[in-house]
Amino acid sequence: MYSDRFSFLVQKLRLLPSVGSKSAQRMALHLLMRQRVGALELAQAITDAVEHIHECSVCHSLTELDVCEICLDTERDQQVLCVVESPADVFAIEHSGSFKGRYHVLHGHLSPLDGIGPEEVGIPHLLQRLSDGQIQEIILATNATVEGQATAHYLVEACRQLPVRISRIAQGVPQGGELEYVDSHTLHQALTHRLMLNQD
Amino acid sequence: MYSDRFSFLVQKLRLLPSVGSKSAQRMALHLLMRQRVGALELAQAITDAVEHIHECSVCHSLTELDVCEICLDTERDQQVLCVVESPADVFAIEHSGSFKGRYHVLHGHLSPLDGIGPEEVGIPHLLQRLSDGQIQEIILATNATVEGQATAHYLVEACRQLPVRISRIAQGVPQGGELEYVDSHTLHQALTHRLMLNQD
Ligand SMILES: [Zn+2]
Ligand SMILES: [Zn+2]
Repeated sequence: MYSDRFSFLVQKLRLLPSVGSKSAQRMALHLLMRQRVGALELAQAITDAVEHIHECSVCHSLTELDVCEICLDTERDQQVLCVVESPADVFAIEHSGSFKGRYHVLHGHLSPLDGIGPEEVGIPHLLQRLSDGQIQEIILATNATVEGQATAHYLVEACRQLPVRISRIAQGVPQGGELEYVDSHTLHQALTHRLMLNQD
Repeated sequence: MYSDRFSFLVQKLRLLPSVGSKSAQRMALHLLMRQRVGALELAQAITDAVEHIHECSVCHSLTELDVCEICLDTERDQQVLCVVESPADVFAIEHSGSFKGRYHVLHGHLSPLDGIGPEEVGIPHLLQRLSDGQIQEIILATNATVEGQATAHYLVEACRQLPVRISRIAQGVPQGGELEYVDSHTLHQALTHRLMLNQD
């Protein structure tokens, strides 16, 4: 009964995370019945964002520049690199104000059962970045989930031959928690009490 | 830290129903990191839908035509009108296959505390539609929620002077339930066992 354009809209709304077919239908009706102007603004905002926002060529966080503001900031410590799973984690750590180095944003975490290996996550590019010897310490700030821990362990092994200290954010992050939802104080504790992994 | 365009996208995603700021941020990151092509398709789908889909000038359901296919269908019973709260309810009833009359779609339900009265819900247009005397029976199929019941009661009063039978879908619809989530069999029961309200 619904038109093809309606069905197409419902189908495309399902690309959003955690949106099933009933929610997508509800969203489509809401936009068409109650938010027609807002809907056009949303469409424009999506298009503008995709056209202007992309990954930083150095750290892979999101930026409107070729290289992001954090990577360009010469006042930040260039010897310490914080590895995270998502730009949302960069935002959370910046918000906590407890880190003044730079970041490297992976494309999520390793998930072998889903076919997501080191290549898909962007680990080769991280290793390449480490190869010039400028970075002295890597802080592994992947999520405290099973997958985040596994990704951190993988990175410890992958960096074992490099002349670099490797640390893991401390267990201030609650077990099973996702970094972007942790409060600033806890993030501060976790960064302050990070544990050295490869030095006695 | 996020760019203005990113913040604008997050703000516009919050126009979607049940989307708070954390979910909107998650959606924006998902689109930009994992669904860039899909995001542009979504934007296009929204724009196309808003440009081509609008309310039927007769029944207020959604259509790409001036008058919708149901209103145009001369094989349907023109003497029975089913009043619902949303186009989603038209879809649910059509899917149940238990109604062959026509529809009138209100703009939701009465909600005096939110300033939503008969005018906002579109009741004057319904009464105008009833004034030509063609319709013999009105089936009130607003939701079985407190607001839907109140809207049905209001309509019974508003139509009391009209030479028209008024019925309410039967209590096959579970108490507190919203019509669009009810299965076809239950909807069929509710339509079949509807109770007459103004005739002894
Ligand atoms: Zn960067
Ligand atoms: Zn119509």
